[in-house]
Amino acid sequence: MIITSTSNPQVKELLQLRKKAKARDAQDVFLVEGLKMFQEAPRERVRKVYVAESLYEQRGQALLAGLEPVILEDRVFAAVSDTRTPQGILCVVDQYHYVLEDLLGSEAPFLLILEDLQDPGNVGTILRTAEGAGADGIILSRKSVDLYNPKTIRSTMGSIYRMPFLYVDRPAEILPLLKERGVRTCAAHLEGARFYDEEDYRTGCAFFIGNEGNGLSGELSRAADVRIRIPMYGKLESLNAAVAASILMYEVCRQRR
Amino acid sequence: MIITSTSNPQVKELLQLRKKAKARDAQDVFLVEGLKMFQEAPRERVRKVYVAESLYEQRGQALLAGLEPVILEDRVFAAVSDTRTPQGILCVVDQYHYVLEDLLGSEAPFLLILEDLQDPGNVGTILRTAEGAGADGIILSRKSVDLYNPKTIRSTMGSIYRMPFLYVDRPAEILPLLKERGVRTCAAHLEGARFYDEEDYRTGCAFFIGNEGNGLSGELSRAADVRIRIPMYGKLESLNAAVAASILMYEVCRQRR
Repeated sequence: MIITSTSNPQVKELLQLRKKAKARDAQDVFLVEGLKMFQEAPRERVRKVYVAESLYEQRGQALLAGLEPVILEDRVFAAVSDTRTPQGILCVVDQYHYVLEDLLGSEAPFLLILEDLQDPGNVGTILRTAEGAGADGIILSRKSVDLYNPKTIRSTMGSIYRMPFLYVDRPAEILPLLKERGVRTCAAHLEGARFYDEEDYRTGCAFFIGNEGNGLSGELSRAADVRIRIPMYGKLESLNAAVAASILMYEVCRQRR
Repeated sequence: MIITSTSNPQVKELLQLRKKAKARDAQDVFLVEGLKMFQEAPRERVRKVYVAESLYEQRGQALLAGLEPVILEDRVFAAVSDTRTPQGILCVVDQYHYVLEDLLGSEAPFLLILEDLQDPGNVGTILRTAEGAGADGIILSRKSVDLYNPKTIRSTMGSIYRMPFLYVDRPAEILPLLKERGVRTCAAHLEGARFYDEEDYRTGCAFFIGNEGNGLSGELSRAADVRIRIPMYGKLESLNAAVAASILMYEVCRQRR
């Protein structure tokens, strides 16, 4: 059977899952789109696969062996897709449910703590870079963008499947536990006393990254063990949040190598 | 006089300038939007200012003293704006025309060479980070995204006014000149022989950054004096292009400090 209408209930449901965090949370799933994201998805988490008719005809056998995909007319697929040039495959995947211990497993935990980040691309890019730099996990304040937003998922480039993350109501609430576990907290701050590369990150460390427009809250800035600064030439007022996070994470990676 | 219709010729022209590189090039201008971008724009380059009626009424006097803005009804302004929540101000600014010498002025030039980058946000973020890291300029292959694309301009956060840049048909054509000027070329490459932080960047250096999907071309990879690698943990295949460029630029910045 092929779905040929955008008013089909399954299509309407996909649109809800794409657009609304509430709909995703209610079903405890998220959407991933594209060949790479499909191929990297852990099979046991894939709840349903939707495929465009043309892709199914061309590569269905090889690609979807053992699965029971729902086939959508190309036009219908394009309507549910979040991209302008859809690759023709989309899956519904089970959400992850990490606990703080999952992020603190290593001897010298290396964490990022994101406060109210709003740009889906930034958060996805941070997750991607965190995997590359060898971080153990990402903590996000509840007011940050939904990590399961399709734009965020796309920019993780698959790291969503591998990088532990956790939403907390207020990042400050977990700081005592981090301290107890020997994790030093570092706030990236324009007025930091020391340059970011003057600290030792070979022991446990966690970096606070603030909201794109407003920077880090006073509460978190003050709560950090140390305030560090990324130097800036020119008349620049700040770096992009994902860039700042990446520079810090790769300094940890450099020191630990 | 207030423009009240989206079919007004000036409004139509603004839409062309927003959407089409050809229209921008024909008039030798680009558009900048938002208060910060307006305030940082060098006055001698501002050819025309468009302002939404509500902003004009609230802050016109203070903001626009000495200028002769064109006022647009808010609804009309929203139609020409490139953002969902327009700040109500948009200017037409003269394009820049740098020559290679503008990028080679310092004793130890520090350059980025972007090959066919397609994502406007990436290119804008690279320009922004380049200013922060103290780079001297950005060279882009002709097939790269247009730097005057409104999305790129927005993500430069004002660096477009300060960071020299140059489009060249083929980056390879300028390599002999760079060599002559003592600029060492470094290709960011997954198979680089050495880690990026094992090279000395205190002398002149230029980094090749490849296209988001395909990486660096064989031609440029081979032409580089050295191929360097950013280490990656996990199953990641690559870093985001702007992130990779930022890590490299801040390593230069760190070594030169």
